[in-house]
Amino acid sequence: MSLKLTILGCGSATPTIDRNPTAQVLQVLERFFLIDCGEGTQLQMRRNKIRPRHFNHIFISHLHGDHYLGLFGLLSSLHLYSRTKPMHVFCPPGLKEIIALQLKASDTRLTYELHFHELVEKGEQLILETNEAEVYSFPMNHRIPCWGFKFVEKSRPKSMRGEKIREYNIPFSKVDDIRNGSDFVTEDGLIIQNNELTFPAKETRTYCFCSDTIYDESIIPFAKGVDLLYHESTFAHDLIEKATNRFHSTALQAATFARKAEAKKLIIGHYSSRYGDITSLLNEARTVFANTIAASDNLVIEIS
Amino acid sequence: MSLKLTILGCGSATPTIDRNPTAQVLQVLERFFLIDCGEGTQLQMRRNKIRPRHFNHIFISHLHGDHYLGLFGLLSSLHLYSRTKPMHVFCPPGLKEIIALQLKASDTRLTYELHFHELVEKGEQLILETNEAEVYSFPMNHRIPCWGFKFVEKSRPKSMRGEKIREYNIPFSKVDDIRNGSDFVTEDGLIIQNNELTFPAKETRTYCFCSDTIYDESIIPFAKGVDLLYHESTFAHDLIEKATNRFHSTALQAATFARKAEAKKLIIGHYSSRYGDITSLLNEARTVFANTIAASDNLVIEIS
Repeated sequence: MSLKLTILGCGSATPTIDRNPTAQVLQVLERFFLIDCGEGTQLQMRRNKIRPRHFNHIFISHLHGDHYLGLFGLLSSLHLYSRTKPMHVFCPPGLKEIIALQLKASDTRLTYELHFHELVEKGEQLILETNEAEVYSFPMNHRIPCWGFKFVEKSRPKSMRGEKIREYNIPFSKVDDIRNGSDFVTEDGLIIQNNELTFPAKETRTYCFCSDTIYDESIIPFAKGVDLLYHESTFAHDLIEKATNRFHSTALQAATFARKAEAKKLIIGHYSSRYGDITSLLNEARTVFANTIAASDNLVIEIS
Repeated sequence: MSLKLTILGCGSATPTIDRNPTAQVLQVLERFFLIDCGEGTQLQMRRNKIRPRHFNHIFISHLHGDHYLGLFGLLSSLHLYSRTKPMHVFCPPGLKEIIALQLKASDTRLTYELHFHELVEKGEQLILETNEAEVYSFPMNHRIPCWGFKFVEKSRPKSMRGEKIREYNIPFSKVDDIRNGSDFVTEDGLIIQNNELTFPAKETRTYCFCSDTIYDESIIPFAKGVDLLYHESTFAHDLIEKATNRFHSTALQAATFARKAEAKKLIIGHYSSRYGDITSLLNEARTVFANTIAASDNLVIEIS
């Protein structure tokens, strides 16, 4: 089963040639979620052969430009492609008005419905449920209201053991029930335990996106035990004061957060443009949390 | 003397990997003008080693996203660089409100003054005069209000013929007057004609930016006799109907415009994303106006 994260941009406020501002695509089976949409996201999608028309859901963490300035261009292009499927944008209050003003200025009436779902600052909220996943928002601690997002893969039906179908002469009409956990009763009244009939269900996987934020332990419970945690690491720890003043985190803090959250794996990003090479940030994080990787533009990660 | 045009983006509404949306930089001596500012302009400046802090004047033709979506990111970066010099944006009504809303959403109070100068739909208007150039706006004919811009280099003082200074014993205090056209009167009352004392002044050069527009001959007078004319060429002429419906022009029309305007040179751009290779557009234009070149991202043109 595919649970795949593509980094479209891992930079911070001032983009560099190698690093676009924040944007990520999470793919759960055939479902695509766009997480943040910094300037240039459209082009990054093209470079990664990700088709904008596959998306129905966009999540915007906060209204600093490096996290949403690519949105209007993307929505405009979907309009020019004559999209008809509705688009859902989960975002902070205020974005709807900006997009409305931009649509008015360009005298554009979109070919599709655009629905805004405003995030609320009240702990963990289930904001979306599809066949593939549940999505939760939770508040970060940044200079302006900011949210993180947690994507929880839904449990899938178990797989049948083919030989048992023949052995117990199980009719096709019972298969769905069994895959969802039911036992089977034979014509003779014999109860066959579900465990004997099926392979164990695969564990569901979770991805948690935390950007931008000051280091804040009150956020840890929302990321508890996730398989992959993205946590911003704008600075190295020698610039802890700058990080704190700007409501950002250091690589060491991101790693500490990951360790305390008991995440399985950490991916750091949102690097300040002062860092050409980010090996020092990665090494710093690994001193605290060994299973850390560094985001880079166009990196693809299979979440296992 | 440097009069240099750098194409940062020559694409149209839907960007491609090879073509960013519209943005150009005109350099007149040490003065930099930014003309339109599509998404990704900041990065294109970096790629072309053009420093955003050199700019004091930005010209936005109209409020379709592909002509201004890079502006807020650029202004934000200048803020992060702690700019203090005022910035002047010449733009259609409506942009000021969009930027104001974006600043409010990001809780940003810029480190520098930002002045908006709204364009008016009343023929040719002198909108800026610097030591180096005069800038005029004039209305285009597009689906929404849209303007073209004409940049007229200012005439520079003539150069003195050094040997004449010695021959007539010209005092230093008189040199500026002579370079600006005065004759010289010797101690004996002899009048020496200016022509004998100076080299002829270099001719002033003009650049005219016409994008986006339907083919409209009423615009031609504003571009009369310019040294370099940029005219949008979204489509080839076999798509004349599509071009007309969308208030765009074909390459043939751009060339016809250039011929009738008696421009010295034409540069075409704003190509539809349907054209991978634009040789056909260039060849089409050259059938009508031989001195045509094709814009491409990162192309630099010296205007002579």
